Amino acid sequence: MTTSPTPRVTIKDVAARAGVSKGAVSLAFNHKPGLSEATRDRIFEAARELGWAPNLAARSLSSSRVDVVGLAICRPAQLLGLEPFYMEFVSGVESVLTERSCSLLLRLVRNVEEEVGLQDAWWRGKQVSGSILVDFRADDPRVPAAERLGLPVVAVGHPSLTGSLTSVWTDDATAVTEAVGYLAALGHRRIARVGGAAALGHTSIRTAAFDEAARALGIAGARQVATDFSGEAGARATRSLLSAARPDRPTAIVYDNDIMAVAGLSVASEMGLGVPGDVSLLAWDDSQLCRLTHPTLSAMSHDVHGFGADVARTLFGVITGEGPGSHPVPTPVLTPRGSTAPPKV
Amino acid sequence: MTTSPTPRVTIKDVAARAGVSKGAVSLAFNHKPGLSEATRDRIFEAARELGWAPNLAARSLSSSRVDVVGLAICRPAQLLGLEPFYMEFVSGVESVLTERSCSLLLRLVRNVEEEVGLQDAWWRGKQVSGSILVDFRADDPRVPAAERLGLPVVAVGHPSLTGSLTSVWTDDATAVTEAVGYLAALGHRRIARVGGAAALGHTSIRTAAFDEAARALGIAGARQVATDFSGEAGARATRSLLSAARPDRPTAIVYDNDIMAVAGLSVASEMGLGVPGDVSLLAWDDSQLCRLTHPTLSAMSHDVHGFGADVARTLFGVITGEGPGSHPVPTPVLTPRGSTAPPKV
Repeated sequence: MTTSPTPRVTIKDVAARAGVSKGAVSLAFNHKPGLSEATRDRIFEAARELGWAPNLAARSLSSSRVDVVGLAICRPAQLLGLEPFYMEFVSGVESVLTERSCSLLLRLVRNVEEEVGLQDAWWRGKQVSGSILVDFRADDPRVPAAERLGLPVVAVGHPSLTGSLTSVWTDDATAVTEAVGYLAALGHRRIARVGGAAALGHTSIRTAAFDEAARALGIAGARQVATDFSGEAGARATRSLLSAARPDRPTAIVYDNDIMAVAGLSVASEMGLGVPGDVSLLAWDDSQLCRLTHPTLSAMSHDVHGFGADVARTLFGVITGEGPGSHPVPTPVLTPRGSTAPPKV
Repeated sequence: MTTSPTPRVTIKDVAARAGVSKGAVSLAFNHKPGLSEATRDRIFEAARELGWAPNLAARSLSSSRVDVVGLAICRPAQLLGLEPFYMEFVSGVESVLTERSCSLLLRLVRNVEEEVGLQDAWWRGKQVSGSILVDFRADDPRVPAAERLGLPVVAVGHPSLTGSLTSVWTDDATAVTEAVGYLAALGHRRIARVGGAAALGHTSIRTAAFDEAARALGIAGARQVATDFSGEAGARATRSLLSAARPDRPTAIVYDNDIMAVAGLSVASEMGLGVPGDVSLLAWDDSQLCRLTHPTLSAMSHDVHGFGADVARTLFGVITGEGPGSHPVPTPVLTPRGSTAPPKV
């Protein structure tokens, strides 16, 4: 963006230089069939020589075509690579974007304020047609920011956290209640939960639901520990829980994802405790990891790939003008495998 | 891109309508400090009303600022979510992009021809400043396409596959030779390799190196199986290898990634075979998974996160005009853990 008064090159100049119609230039830049390779090359060559590029915003408005969808994730880069959840979520989003020749603009941010500035710049700079917002917190500043901008978004989070934004969400409270109820039905009275990052809204919802379920079932020996979702943090939390004196040691542990449950299984083995003989373990999300361990891990199964696909489809609806809505996806369901059993008496 | 002769709106019109200088509009759209919130809002409001957006290409050229880097991956969406490699690689790329306020434009493609068209459209449409190309094959059409376009790229692949493009690569042949040599030194004579997708260049390099190493060591009982890198395929391959009659059954298996080795460990357990007593397993890449199993998995350790970061840094060099180069990253090194031992006699 220079401030010197250079004359602006238009599509007409490009067409004239390439010796074709403006429609042909449009076809070439929209990557559509109907032109010979030689003609396309001539058009692109002319555009390069003149320094012309289509106005992406105008292109997007005139053809109602959605090219790029934004996603900012607020996690340290190192941690992102370790969590199966995000890659499965992204792969589900991509499965829908690919069908529509659309790309994902992905960015890691350090905090939610940085994301607010980024979404603002992406939208005003016409770099995205809409965005997916994840990891909601209480009083999330992205809610008023997206409302003020008129940015088409899908908020991945419980409606209690996402204000007037269209939301796609999982009923975590019901799933936690089912998990605790199942372990209690097996006979467990000392049940622990290794939870995710305490600042996240969905973690708070699960924490409250776990306390409530334990209270309702009259389970006094319920404990919860917060982590950062990493395998290492899950291992540390499990080691600490299983190091308690025998009468206080939990006989069942629920995890907030699957990588922490895999780590927990390894810690039990390292401490000479049998699974499920001495301690039952219940994972969450249920990627292929849960079926690759020995014993296999019982889990609250959540189709994360399908969840990502639902989010992407809902965003296309928002971009094309559908009104705001709240879309629950199927609640995670209990999939019992080899890691849960009644406690030894 | 309409063909009706609408007059083109310029930055001057936006400045006039907002009652500010062109420099102020530039500051606002480049997301730079120095303007009050009210002024910024007025500028964006004026730009929206007039339907104006900065020419991203001009902005990028005038400020030498790199905003977006492209990455297309040719894998089924479902598989992408299951392989730790790509998420760790992407997280390494993002760790460098984030430092420079840059985003990653990510797209899944069905085949390499689709990627050629996509990179062409991204570059000519000025949507990216450069791209990362991965998963090279023999006679890869992306090499001449990138050369012809003048697209700044980093090719992640062995120089024998990437032509004149700047490459960042791992010496897979040396690493395979070390892996086979180590297992042979332990006393193994029936060694199998569960490899990746046969069409990929780096798989061919590993396959040839495995055969060569076995020949050089006089190991007759060497076998190789190709897979799609998924845990399920790794489990099937392992089940098939371990179902051979005892005298033919491999006593050691090398895997092309870690998720397949985890799956292999589970299959050995399911078949009642001890690891490493009955069969030694050696993983590749070495994400945290290898330290979470029991026994822990010996691996050819490769810092995939650091590899992604190196690739991103090299791409910034290419974009800012560094000449072509070939950049080997550290060769994967043997990290012995609990899953390898001498064979039972």
